[in-house]
Amino acid sequence: MKEYQIDVQLSSNLKEKPAFDQLSFGTVFTDHMFIMDYTEGMGWHDARIVPYQPISLDPSAIIFHYGQTVFEGLKAYNTKDNEILLFRPDENMKRLNRSNKRLVIPEIDEDFALYALKKLIAVDKDWVPSVEGTSLYVRPFIFATEPYLGVRPSAQYSFVIILSPVGAYYKEGINPVKIAVEGDFVRAVKGGTGNAKTAGNYAASLKAQHDAEKQGYSQVLWLDGRENKYIEEVGSMNVFFKIDGEVVTPELNGSILEGITRKSVIELLQYWNIPVVERKISIEELFAAHHEGKLEEAFGTGTAAVISPIGELSWNGEKITVNNLETGPLAKKIYDSLTGIQTGVAEDPFGWRVVVETE
Amino acid sequence: MKEYQIDVQLSSNLKEKPAFDQLSFGTVFTDHMFIMDYTEGMGWHDARIVPYQPISLDPSAIIFHYGQTVFEGLKAYNTKDNEILLFRPDENMKRLNRSNKRLVIPEIDEDFALYALKKLIAVDKDWVPSVEGTSLYVRPFIFATEPYLGVRPSAQYSFVIILSPVGAYYKEGINPVKIAVEGDFVRAVKGGTGNAKTAGNYAASLKAQHDAEKQGYSQVLWLDGRENKYIEEVGSMNVFFKIDGEVVTPELNGSILEGITRKSVIELLQYWNIPVVERKISIEELFAAHHEGKLEEAFGTGTAAVISPIGELSWNGEKITVNNLETGPLAKKIYDSLTGIQTGVAEDPFGWRVVVETE
Ligand SMILES: Cc1ncc(COP(=O)(O)O)c(C=O)c1O
Ligand SMILES: Cc1ncc(COP(=O)(O)O)c(C=O)c1O
Repeated sequence: MKEYQIDVQLSSNLKEKPAFDQLSFGTVFTDHMFIMDYTEGMGWHDARIVPYQPISLDPSAIIFHYGQTVFEGLKAYNTKDNEILLFRPDENMKRLNRSNKRLVIPEIDEDFALYALKKLIAVDKDWVPSVEGTSLYVRPFIFATEPYLGVRPSAQYSFVIILSPVGAYYKEGINPVKIAVEGDFVRAVKGGTGNAKTAGNYAASLKAQHDAEKQGYSQVLWLDGRENKYIEEVGSMNVFFKIDGEVVTPELNGSILEGITRKSVIELLQYWNIPVVERKISIEELFAAHHEGKLEEAFGTGTAAVISPIGELSWNGEKITVNNLETGPLAKKIYDSLTGIQTGVAEDPFGWRVVVETE
Repeated sequence: MKEYQIDVQLSSNLKEKPAFDQLSFGTVFTDHMFIMDYTEGMGWHDARIVPYQPISLDPSAIIFHYGQTVFEGLKAYNTKDNEILLFRPDENMKRLNRSNKRLVIPEIDEDFALYALKKLIAVDKDWVPSVEGTSLYVRPFIFATEPYLGVRPSAQYSFVIILSPVGAYYKEGINPVKIAVEGDFVRAVKGGTGNAKTAGNYAASLKAQHDAEKQGYSQVLWLDGRENKYIEEVGSMNVFFKIDGEVVTPELNGSILEGITRKSVIELLQYWNIPVVERKISIEELFAAHHEGKLEEAFGTGTAAVISPIGELSWNGEKITVNNLETGPLAKKIYDSLTGIQTGVAEDPFGWRVVVETE
């Protein structure tokens, strides 16, 4: 591996680790973080690993006002043999740069960023939990730091990576959830930022999500912003339907995030010779398929939950139940295969795993 | 005026003030800032005025990842008689709360927020410039501070107000600008966050704006996100057209920001008995009106520039010139009237001015 220059300042005050069998999501952070700065004319500089610490910004920093920021999310797993594995991290770095382009943020060196990420995990290797269902969630993010109130791209940025040991996303294990189809609010639209992993998309999603939860749903199913007709995503996940033996997922149209789990599921299905197609699918078509008895399974895909089966869908005053509110065989098979590859218990025919060297 | 409790900690190290005749926009900040925190179960608390200082946040603070934030922008003016005037600040506080609702941020007490804003200006009153065209730009903003990586509304927030003495927005005075009609990117869509003043809208706008500037335009004209057909806004301003003696501005449709300057312009026009209508207007209609010799004037409206005449519009490879690239008589009349009211040189028949008590 190419050697890069990263200054490492170890913490002299290590935190107490939480009980790894009682982890929740995104509340506990490790002892260190990676940080690197960008200054116009100088490029990215001062890559360093430092004790986990607050970020201090001028109140006029562009991030606070104009949200110029992008992020990524991936996981590191501890295998039975105490190896630390990442899942397709190069895809995250590529997507980070695609997001950067959309947000007019200077690109990063993907190889270097991956090197830095591994180095940080190696420093905090004792934080990678090994209890079943747990992992180390990795959050790289870049944000505009220039103190300036004009609306234009920042001349200064920070790139930070933080690590958080996490438990299973759904406490009760993989269990079908109830989903409300969102008819009023939209998450993103063609020409907007939906296919970039940027803060504003998530801010836009909070209200619908919040309202749905109050009504007993765990997520919303988003429809497209142009016609409020075509299915886009479910919560912060991509979505798949098994209809009459064929697996259908909404095609990438510029407003859907290109999920790495989504891509992996498509590749797995192709490998298994299960028919899978990326195309437009309207909410009418989905409900019609159900009425004809052809909607066999529905599930979301994403790094956090891996696979999240959908048991009930509510739209326009009608509720439909998918696969008797049980996890379908395909969702189960994909979940087992993906987590098997991710955690090192299964073969990795695709070469998706990347080992983190800890010595 | 009702008295509220605000702790004031004055700076012992006052900054040197910039030359007030050489100010730009949004780069220089005053000696103090207002800050107040929100904690779930406690509400808003610890309102204080403190020396202008960095904001320190956990790297996992929700603002960095999910952009849960809203802001406002208004100006304070120094009159010839050394009175400090605000322009319809109650409207900003109302809009802040409307934005809060959309972003699932707890509402603020509008009266208290206005009181705090005035108090902060009074503390930094020597920073309100009095040179022609200058003002004190006021930036209230609220952002999610809870350290948590889950996607849901934050349980903690800060509300901050900062002040920046600013020069005229367009250095060369009010002068017509060249605008590119944006055909690919969109700023906002119905069901999204376009009518809230929230960071993600501005992040989404950077790329189109950046590309337009590279091609010699100063802003883009945004079309709607559903059909890419109807005119929405220009840059970060609302937009007006005078067509065949009638003034037309896009109707509020959920994706357009409800500008306070827009509202004031409509009220002024009505007061003057100049026909003004809020309705859908397509880009085809606008270009057709030009071809028929009926497009008399075009201008943007917003707090920063007040009125910004549009001299040239480029769309689909065609360039049209409005009013010979000169500021039209209506734009000039509105600009003079609004700035006259704002700076105290003209009558205020609408009661739009609010005095900041400095003793
Ligand atoms: C909006 C959105 N859609 C889909 C996904 C799934 O992407 P991935 O499979 O890369 O985690 C994510 C991220 O988790 C997301 O935030
Ligand atoms: C997107 C956008 N549209 C319009 C406006 C104009 O609003 P106002 O007149 O209240 O400044 C602003 C703010 O300046 C804005 O940010």
